[in-house]
Amino acid sequence: MNLKMIGRLLSQLIAIEAAVMIPALCISMGYGEWNSVSAMAVSMGIMLIVSTGLWLLCRKSSRYFGPTEGMVCTGLGWVVLSLLGALPFCLSGVIPRYIDALFEIVSGFSTTGASILPEVESLPRGLLYWRSFSNWLGGMGVLVLLLAIVPSGGQGQGFTMHLLRAESPGPDVGKLVPKMKKTAVILYGLYVILTLIDMALLLLDGHSLLNAACIAFSTAGTGGFGIMNDSFASFSPYTQNVTTVFTLLFGVNFSCYYLLLLGNIKSVLKDEELRLYLGLFLAATVVIVLDIRDLYGSLEESIRHSAFQVTTIMTTCGFATTDFDQWPMLSKGILMLLMVVGACAGSTGGGLKCSRVLLLFKSLGRNIRRVTNPQRVDVVRINGKAVNERVLDNTNAYLAAYVIILVASFLVVSLDKQSIGTTFTAVLSAFNNIGPGMEAVGPTCNFAFFSDVSKVTLIFDMLAGRLEIFPMLILFSRVTWKR
Amino acid sequence: MNLKMIGRLLSQLIAIEAAVMIPALCISMGYGEWNSVSAMAVSMGIMLIVSTGLWLLCRKSSRYFGPTEGMVCTGLGWVVLSLLGALPFCLSGVIPRYIDALFEIVSGFSTTGASILPEVESLPRGLLYWRSFSNWLGGMGVLVLLLAIVPSGGQGQGFTMHLLRAESPGPDVGKLVPKMKKTAVILYGLYVILTLIDMALLLLDGHSLLNAACIAFSTAGTGGFGIMNDSFASFSPYTQNVTTVFTLLFGVNFSCYYLLLLGNIKSVLKDEELRLYLGLFLAATVVIVLDIRDLYGSLEESIRHSAFQVTTIMTTCGFATTDFDQWPMLSKGILMLLMVVGACAGSTGGGLKCSRVLLLFKSLGRNIRRVTNPQRVDVVRINGKAVNERVLDNTNAYLAAYVIILVASFLVVSLDKQSIGTTFTAVLSAFNNIGPGMEAVGPTCNFAFFSDVSKVTLIFDMLAGRLEIFPMLILFSRVTWKR
Repeated sequence: MNLKMIGRLLSQLIAIEAAVMIPALCISMGYGEWNSVSAMAVSMGIMLIVSTGLWLLCRKSSRYFGPTEGMVCTGLGWVVLSLLGALPFCLSGVIPRYIDALFEIVSGFSTTGASILPEVESLPRGLLYWRSFSNWLGGMGVLVLLLAIVPSGGQGQGFTMHLLRAESPGPDVGKLVPKMKKTAVILYGLYVILTLIDMALLLLDGHSLLNAACIAFSTAGTGGFGIMNDSFASFSPYTQNVTTVFTLLFGVNFSCYYLLLLGNIKSVLKDEELRLYLGLFLAATVVIVLDIRDLYGSLEESIRHSAFQVTTIMTTCGFATTDFDQWPMLSKGILMLLMVVGACAGSTGGGLKCSRVLLLFKSLGRNIRRVTNPQRVDVVRINGKAVNERVLDNTNAYLAAYVIILVASFLVVSLDKQSIGTTFTAVLSAFNNIGPGMEAVGPTCNFAFFSDVSKVTLIFDMLAGRLEIFPMLILFSRVTWKR
Repeated sequence: MNLKMIGRLLSQLIAIEAAVMIPALCISMGYGEWNSVSAMAVSMGIMLIVSTGLWLLCRKSSRYFGPTEGMVCTGLGWVVLSLLGALPFCLSGVIPRYIDALFEIVSGFSTTGASILPEVESLPRGLLYWRSFSNWLGGMGVLVLLLAIVPSGGQGQGFTMHLLRAESPGPDVGKLVPKMKKTAVILYGLYVILTLIDMALLLLDGHSLLNAACIAFSTAGTGGFGIMNDSFASFSPYTQNVTTVFTLLFGVNFSCYYLLLLGNIKSVLKDEELRLYLGLFLAATVVIVLDIRDLYGSLEESIRHSAFQVTTIMTTCGFATTDFDQWPMLSKGILMLLMVVGACAGSTGGGLKCSRVLLLFKSLGRNIRRVTNPQRVDVVRINGKAVNERVLDNTNAYLAAYVIILVASFLVVSLDKQSIGTTFTAVLSAFNNIGPGMEAVGPTCNFAFFSDVSKVTLIFDMLAGRLEIFPMLILFSRVTWKR
């Protein structure tokens, strides 16, 4: 393995992390939060030292960069960024224990949004910003950012391809344009524009610039870190509805927006994944409205809460306008199903992804047809195009890995002697990057009470969920390090 | 599709069902339970009429019998046998509502052992026998019995092969001997002998002949219908330990016993599935003993309860010596994991089966290695033999179908507004043919409180679980009936 090349990339990543902390530092300075300022300054100092050290160590390397390097670099990159990104919380004393600070920042980068903080309104503004910004950065991915802004120098297409593949969600990551670097630029461009529109609409409702930015960051990354203790419950219906719409938009495959910009509306309307995604959204919203209609004063309120909760859970954002743990079991069951299904591939949302669910259903259908006719040659198609058998194979392996990690994590977290509902939904929520679960980890609760062993397990789950399992499995696999 | 041939087979199946009800009828006569006697006589009459009618309707048919016919015949056969087998409970008034009687007999045939009866000790003896015998018949399979006892006449190998494949559990059903009919005879021979040994050992503990037979039937089929209200709690440690050993034995692939009879001990000791099965049994027992050591008076008691519960859950039998719903969360988590893993292929146990779990892990390992080396040619091996890619493909499809049915059933049953733990474990328990779940469906509870919609869902799950999904999916699939 080309460890030096990975080291150089990590060095660049850490430098980027230090750079994107500058606005948080300025905000803390503006608010006179000197405790946070010094914590962030020290953190940035440590980052720069580590970054420079790695750069010097790994200056000279060969150019080879294969799929293994892409996976290891992505997995390791996210672990290192999390370890360093947790420092400001810890050094400022806002989150005294390092493991808790790490949980919080991994929850941020992985766009989970589960918190160990009992209340967030008293957080120093600079740290609140950093927390919400971690959602935004993790949403589109930090390696994609690196590809977008750092000149690629002499590295070939394979290099950018393997990195983008390893970090971007979905069963089969396609290029928007032939050049991968340009793809990354387009993705981040769309991401910034959509975030700015959301922010502008929030400013219209009277939110301060900082608050609007924080809400927009967590919405865009479908992260779910709130700025109020009650998440979205005390915001106006306008802010709630704007967030519903934008969360839904950020759960769509970004290639759809690119196609729209190119004027190719027909392909977007015919996209099978988008149809499944919007169909599920509509169906779930309607069923839940019927199920909860007696709980709220008006139909408008029921529709607003239902649409908001369905969107935020399905895109794995995790905001809450109401305590959905109090909803009837059917509504809770639907939300748990949506937790697993997740958003579209190539979006900032998590979960299995609608396209994987489509592939699983279609390949299951093929297997059923094969029983009745074993000789039949049968190709699985998405949007009319034949799906590569390797992609199908990987999707099945993904499901297997998904179930295995879910079950193993459930066992470890069950050491904490919580109820089945709490244990199961805590793992489900972390692994699918949702945020809240049900019962003791419901939307009004937090994850602070878990033991350190459970927290480490959930940290692994959050990272594995965001990076779609394989980078983390390969990072920790014996095979990778044997050679 | 050759419907006439299927009809003829169904006619034979129903005749067998009427025949195996004769002992139950005799027992009811012996105990003077005239109510049950008349109910059974009427039921048998209906069976004979249906059987004769089908025979006359389907006398002449072509000889073709393909995989579709095998699947449809198996799925339909089990549904029809259940619909008819429920009659004695209903007609005798012991279970007044037909849907409840159907739940009870499907629970029996599918070797689930979940009951809607609040208490079983006052059941007429004849019906108690019929209930326990349904566990035995379902354990090895009624089509296998048909193959073993009915002369195959002119039907070819394909015919028996497709039926045995459709009904027998496991990812790849092998023949013990070149002739399928002889394989069926050997399987039932081993089954009868092991059941008789178990019965003899139970008689030594002072159980009556009827009770010993009933216990042995439910143990052998790993069904789990008890004859006491507290399942196994009031039985002697001797009876409990004998049952632990025999439940474990009935969860082993029967081909291992055949190999032992042939003197091929080496192959049995090296069998990867057997090693995984016994390894899981030992590991789970030890961890649970450590977890529950403070709950019982002595170490012997902790070990006895732990080994009993691990075996009975892992083989999906479902007996209980103690209320394991009161155990700490880790132990409950391990039991829930074992519910999913299940016993060995080719045994009477349910669940995913150890060999499928092995295949899923091995093919996942291959996919991880493929990331690091995409060109690598890599064959998955079990016991040193290469596994056919079609089998791997089917195993993955099986997992997908498993997850989809689990999630869909969870949603329907959640209409009943029970807790997450109750809803989830009720579905898990029915689908894996265990019997008890946790919380409101724990070992001291029953399934009577569910709505009819939930009961029908659970009935489907039990049958789909026992027949390993595909026969049921193909029976209800549009593709099957289109031609």
